[in-house]
Amino acid sequence: MTVREEQVLERIERARSRKARLREDTITLAHGSGGKATRTLVEAVFREAFSNPLLDRMDDSARFRVNGADLAFTTDCHVVSPLFFPGGDIGDLAVNGTVNDLAVCGARPLHLSAGFILEEGFPVADLRRITESMRRAADAAGVDIVTGDTKVVERGKADGCFVTTAGVGVVRSRPAGEIRPGDAVLVTGPIGEHGVTIMLARGELDLEADVVSDTAPLTCLLADLADACPGGLRRMRDATRGGVATVLNEMASDAGAAVVVEEDAIPVRPAVRGACELLGIDPMYVACEGRAVVVVAPECAPAALAALRAHPLGEEAAAIGRVTDDPSGLVLLKTAFGGTRIVDLLVGDPLPRIC
Amino acid sequence: MTVREEQVLERIERARSRKARLREDTITLAHGSGGKATRTLVEAVFREAFSNPLLDRMDDSARFRVNGADLAFTTDCHVVSPLFFPGGDIGDLAVNGTVNDLAVCGARPLHLSAGFILEEGFPVADLRRITESMRRAADAAGVDIVTGDTKVVERGKADGCFVTTAGVGVVRSRPAGEIRPGDAVLVTGPIGEHGVTIMLARGELDLEADVVSDTAPLTCLLADLADACPGGLRRMRDATRGGVATVLNEMASDAGAAVVVEEDAIPVRPAVRGACELLGIDPMYVACEGRAVVVVAPECAPAALAALRAHPLGEEAAAIGRVTDDPSGLVLLKTAFGGTRIVDLLVGDPLPRIC
Repeated sequence: MTVREEQVLERIERARSRKARLREDTITLAHGSGGKATRTLVEAVFREAFSNPLLDRMDDSARFRVNGADLAFTTDCHVVSPLFFPGGDIGDLAVNGTVNDLAVCGARPLHLSAGFILEEGFPVADLRRITESMRRAADAAGVDIVTGDTKVVERGKADGCFVTTAGVGVVRSRPAGEIRPGDAVLVTGPIGEHGVTIMLARGELDLEADVVSDTAPLTCLLADLADACPGGLRRMRDATRGGVATVLNEMASDAGAAVVVEEDAIPVRPAVRGACELLGIDPMYVACEGRAVVVVAPECAPAALAALRAHPLGEEAAAIGRVTDDPSGLVLLKTAFGGTRIVDLLVGDPLPRIC
Repeated sequence: MTVREEQVLERIERARSRKARLREDTITLAHGSGGKATRTLVEAVFREAFSNPLLDRMDDSARFRVNGADLAFTTDCHVVSPLFFPGGDIGDLAVNGTVNDLAVCGARPLHLSAGFILEEGFPVADLRRITESMRRAADAAGVDIVTGDTKVVERGKADGCFVTTAGVGVVRSRPAGEIRPGDAVLVTGPIGEHGVTIMLARGELDLEADVVSDTAPLTCLLADLADACPGGLRRMRDATRGGVATVLNEMASDAGAAVVVEEDAIPVRPAVRGACELLGIDPMYVACEGRAVVVVAPECAPAALAALRAHPLGEEAAAIGRVTDDPSGLVLLKTAFGGTRIVDLLVGDPLPRIC
């Protein structure tokens, strides 16, 4: 065993032994990152208080039956800054975010709710722009916004407009739920576009790139996928906060399996790759708002990929790796140079308020 | 016709001719009051953008059928300040608010979602206190919190903690929906306690009073009521922002009927009455978080009142007035001195961030 291999094994051991324990006394931006700190907060505070069989599954949506109907229910808060950015705004993000949390559970969205927290002084014209955008996104996803609420807080007590959506859907084709060694790991398109768009839109970086958010509803794309691999669909997750790296880590951890990803196989547009290099961040951790990670049985992979690529939102779908049984709970990246590194959960939050 | 009567008629005419038109260019605190400005914002922006048959009913919950099951779906944002107050906190308020929006539609809550928007630096101990309180409230209402989301914004971009809940329920006994002349108007208990509690808790007034919030889940109370008046239950609303006055106005306006209320019959605790007098506000406009306004057919009124009073949360229920057919769309108050005045929708917001 080389020194390098020993180091890798030691890190694996450390990673395995970590437990959810909240060390901080106050909330930090990292608790909203979608990465390690978010997971710890959820485990140590929310699951600790609310624990019940539906919540404890920690899926994108809670699933339950009423009168024989298989329903899914989910919610998302949106605090993206800026509110308007190339390719979208907080409105379509809020609709697509909830629609996609239903879609990755195999559900067709039925109805959405929308809760607005507005800051005194917020321009009514901006609110109209946001609601128009929500309506267009809802139309595109085939869903209605049927109930809502609005609260206003004093100037300086919020940042313009926060939107919280919740959604109820009917489960159409439920993925098996657990990934298994041998399974193929796919992404439905190039990654990192939403996150890079937001970073550039903030104008804090003296950088321009031709990138727009990938915000989109995944319902039809993922329904086509499900039809293409009956019985072989293991798990789907939309790769939002924390990006593909976070989704893969959660899948690996939940299943006690490993995911091995080929760096070369991950689709990243040149502009995104360039921006990430300049910013010193890994596109694997950058949020998408219209891409999913999909795990299918190995024999289904070709049909799954073909189904994804046949849909306009999946034209650049790619097989990026495999599930293996060891090292349990970890994600490994085979780099273009032949090396292997652990892709851990994100620590800290390099990109606050991405959605 | 006396001069006074002429003035009343003129005001009635003016009130009738008002239309939803948003004159402001920016959001004001009044848009969150639950009163006239909120209604205008909802009509001119949200309904304008989202209009669909379920939303357009403008009920506390949207109701729809899945596989023959009659479901209700609702959401509430909570921005109450302070977060903790005598009798409750933002946590139980968030759970009870959504549970009660389902209950007044005749629905038993099935599942809740919870979305948290946290400010960087918010104490984890306070968050634990809030989630514990939510769990207790959920247990009391017989409902689980099954899905959630958390976002964190930078210091100064929110005010500690905002909680948005959504809920799905099964409709058990649907009220008829429309009030009719002759119907009896009841309240399930003394009014204004929550609002006065919040005002005093802010400590901006040099005033002490022995008042606690009435925050409570109304599911069982209103289910008992429904059982007691089969076929005679017209409409139920929880009297939150804008208080009983706002609820009565919306009922009158929706039905094109009038509601005539006897001031003497409205239950108000002495401490609430005293605080309201000192503050120069009318308890009819002050928020409750555990009281409903209920309209029943006249022949059902005695049984309805008895059923409410038999429940711990309805011991002080009272019949406060009647529905009449004229003046259409208005609420009239018969004062203790024999006069009559119009109880209009609230203009402005004397009590921002009450829930």
